[in-house]
Amino acid sequence: MNAPVTNPDLRRIHGFPVSGDQLVVGGLPLRRLAARVGTTPFYAYDRGLLTERVAALRHHLPAGLHLSYAVKANPMPAVIGHLARLVDGMDVASAGELAKVLDAGMDPSHVSFAGPGKRAEELAQAVAAGVTVNIESPAELEVLTREAARIGVAPRVAVRVNPDFDLRGSGMRMGGGAKQFGIDAEEVPQLLRRIAELDADFVGFHVFWGSQALRPALIREAQEKSVDLVLRLTEHAPGPPELVNVGGGFGIPYHEKDEALPLAVVGEGMAALSDRLARDLPEARLGIELGRYIVGEAGVYVCRVVDRKVSRGQVFLVTDGGLHHHLAATGNFGQVLRRNYPVVLGTRMAAAAVETQSVVGCLCTPIDLLADRVELPRAEVGDLVVIFQSGAYGASASPHGFLGHGGPAEVLV
Amino acid sequence: MNAPVTNPDLRRIHGFPVSGDQLVVGGLPLRRLAARVGTTPFYAYDRGLLTERVAALRHHLPAGLHLSYAVKANPMPAVIGHLARLVDGMDVASAGELAKVLDAGMDPSHVSFAGPGKRAEELAQAVAAGVTVNIESPAELEVLTREAARIGVAPRVAVRVNPDFDLRGSGMRMGGGAKQFGIDAEEVPQLLRRIAELDADFVGFHVFWGSQALRPALIREAQEKSVDLVLRLTEHAPGPPELVNVGGGFGIPYHEKDEALPLAVVGEGMAALSDRLARDLPEARLGIELGRYIVGEAGVYVCRVVDRKVSRGQVFLVTDGGLHHHLAATGNFGQVLRRNYPVVLGTRMAAAAVETQSVVGCLCTPIDLLADRVELPRAEVGDLVVIFQSGAYGASASPHGFLGHGGPAEVLV
Repeated sequence: MNAPVTNPDLRRIHGFPVSGDQLVVGGLPLRRLAARVGTTPFYAYDRGLLTERVAALRHHLPAGLHLSYAVKANPMPAVIGHLARLVDGMDVASAGELAKVLDAGMDPSHVSFAGPGKRAEELAQAVAAGVTVNIESPAELEVLTREAARIGVAPRVAVRVNPDFDLRGSGMRMGGGAKQFGIDAEEVPQLLRRIAELDADFVGFHVFWGSQALRPALIREAQEKSVDLVLRLTEHAPGPPELVNVGGGFGIPYHEKDEALPLAVVGEGMAALSDRLARDLPEARLGIELGRYIVGEAGVYVCRVVDRKVSRGQVFLVTDGGLHHHLAATGNFGQVLRRNYPVVLGTRMAAAAVETQSVVGCLCTPIDLLADRVELPRAEVGDLVVIFQSGAYGASASPHGFLGHGGPAEVLV
Repeated sequence: MNAPVTNPDLRRIHGFPVSGDQLVVGGLPLRRLAARVGTTPFYAYDRGLLTERVAALRHHLPAGLHLSYAVKANPMPAVIGHLARLVDGMDVASAGELAKVLDAGMDPSHVSFAGPGKRAEELAQAVAAGVTVNIESPAELEVLTREAARIGVAPRVAVRVNPDFDLRGSGMRMGGGAKQFGIDAEEVPQLLRRIAELDADFVGFHVFWGSQALRPALIREAQEKSVDLVLRLTEHAPGPPELVNVGGGFGIPYHEKDEALPLAVVGEGMAALSDRLARDLPEARLGIELGRYIVGEAGVYVCRVVDRKVSRGQVFLVTDGGLHHHLAATGNFGQVLRRNYPVVLGTRMAAAAVETQSVVGCLCTPIDLLADRVELPRAEVGDLVVIFQSGAYGASASPHGFLGHGGPAEVLV
């Protein structure tokens, strides 16, 4: 449908084709896409790249794997709707996300709800919907049970385990040590005994050890340790688990020195793990949940150059975008070191990079820096700046109300 | 009206009275306030503290000073409406903020619009409204003039100057060196000549050198250098400036070691500056614009304890709040070092701090940490956590959409 550009020999950059002087997103040259959206700035997610990414996961990871999408990475309803037809399940972190996946037609029995501090109203909604609640604390289990009794439906429960191992090297460690997430591994047997006493359906285990890992050896180790842990804990379970969710954590390359995760290598480790689970826990299905890895590289953020300004020898491209739309790209979303996301002038792809330019947003604050002194073709007012790797933790993780410019448009194309 | 608590001898903490076991905000004990709001989490801004702060500024700063409110710090319409009756002007950073101050009834001739990357549509709105545009680049002046001609109204213009001095010690430097803000001082004469050629009303100068300064000597030096610079630049102006805006930059104490700015000392320096301006530029009025200093300490963020969880010996108070509402308090809004904001249990003010507890939000991410290992009374589910110093860059500077829990309520009380 959207395919004016079909030449398979096109040069690609970060997965997106280039046609003449323009980047091509979702089959549309960037200027045409901007005209279709009707406004800048916008996020565009490439439907084909999403499909390709899930296909690559299916190809490299073991057959029978339960592949879940972590909605928190990108909750745009159209993205959820597209992925709902490709993945096996979805993980939500709030009643708001739950409503979106139910609207998209996901089978509730393949939806899980994880996160600390679930309120009684949210737990009631989850029970009524028939989704699995990943229990994060003993108190939560009691509130869930109370709400389930009130509604008259047995809750589906899984235990989120805070592992007793800790892994160095993932971008963000979420397991091991003292955490607000999950039940400490050593406390899990007691919780499992309590679940057995209650009128609840035990679904399985969820072990989340970290995120944004780029080394396959680390992922393999974490997944193996997670399965070891689950096998030990299963002895205490009210019944065999249906699902053993060994978390997510697959990273994507954001910066120059990052290397893409070799999916085939990860897949080898998971195949061995799947075989082991088939032998030791034949009723259980191995599962993973991925957010960033599925959507992160399929999305770009596009903003327009409003002014080209030279201050004391330094060139600033002042755009209509900024940190209110893409906080992470400015390095202000909890990052310790600010590093540039990959950036191009999407309307000057055929031109040579001849000038050092900084790309800034329109906010009246010095932290609104989208790209710090990068080599680009000479830009003019009206050019479109493209920031890659923007499909995850972009639009939804940014303060749209800051300084009153309003939020970005979003399209799935 | 809201004054069930009237005892003047009440103990105060961060400016807020304490009555029995409860913090009092806007005259209401916290549980009653929460009931009035009807939901948690919420931001509450104390009307009386806003009024007191402006009164303190009027008392210590020279008579005749043009005191402007920088809306970016807190754009809640009720806050703008309250301050509109107390300050002399307002500074906006977008067409969105402009609409709010016009709705609040501010005299447009006392409103200024600053910020890089102003779009043609925004400039047209500013001209049509009759507010002053602080010019940030030569190109912007040309676009403004074109839009003004189209509308048939002479634009009111001020020149935002990127100073040729640089100050160490302010929390955030916004002037000096190469910047996206303002016109480099050495380029200003040329811009002033261009303004003289155009059909434009020249209003004055705006020098913004930094923000969050807590040392009065630094503020004094910056303001003096700003006036020196303006006096030099005025020689090239099409006429005498009406307004010399020497920026803002007054800081508030966020952390234990921070000391409050001694306003009387700042006032002495400004009195001398005002006298000097009266002598050398009799037509000009000295102006400052303050955001954080006016609203920052008048606001609290309130969230409810949903779970009290112990993980490997560490106590976590899991709340219904989090970084989606108060990014800065979690240390993730561009801060290099994470430091706790002042925090109390607003429903246990009479109890002794007996336990080390961490306050976390309900988001499924380890960066959602509102207070790291603070001494507090023992909390129970239902207690209300209060984070002080939350009136500025709180609600509007946070990613409300992140993880789908929704935004906070806001009240002016």
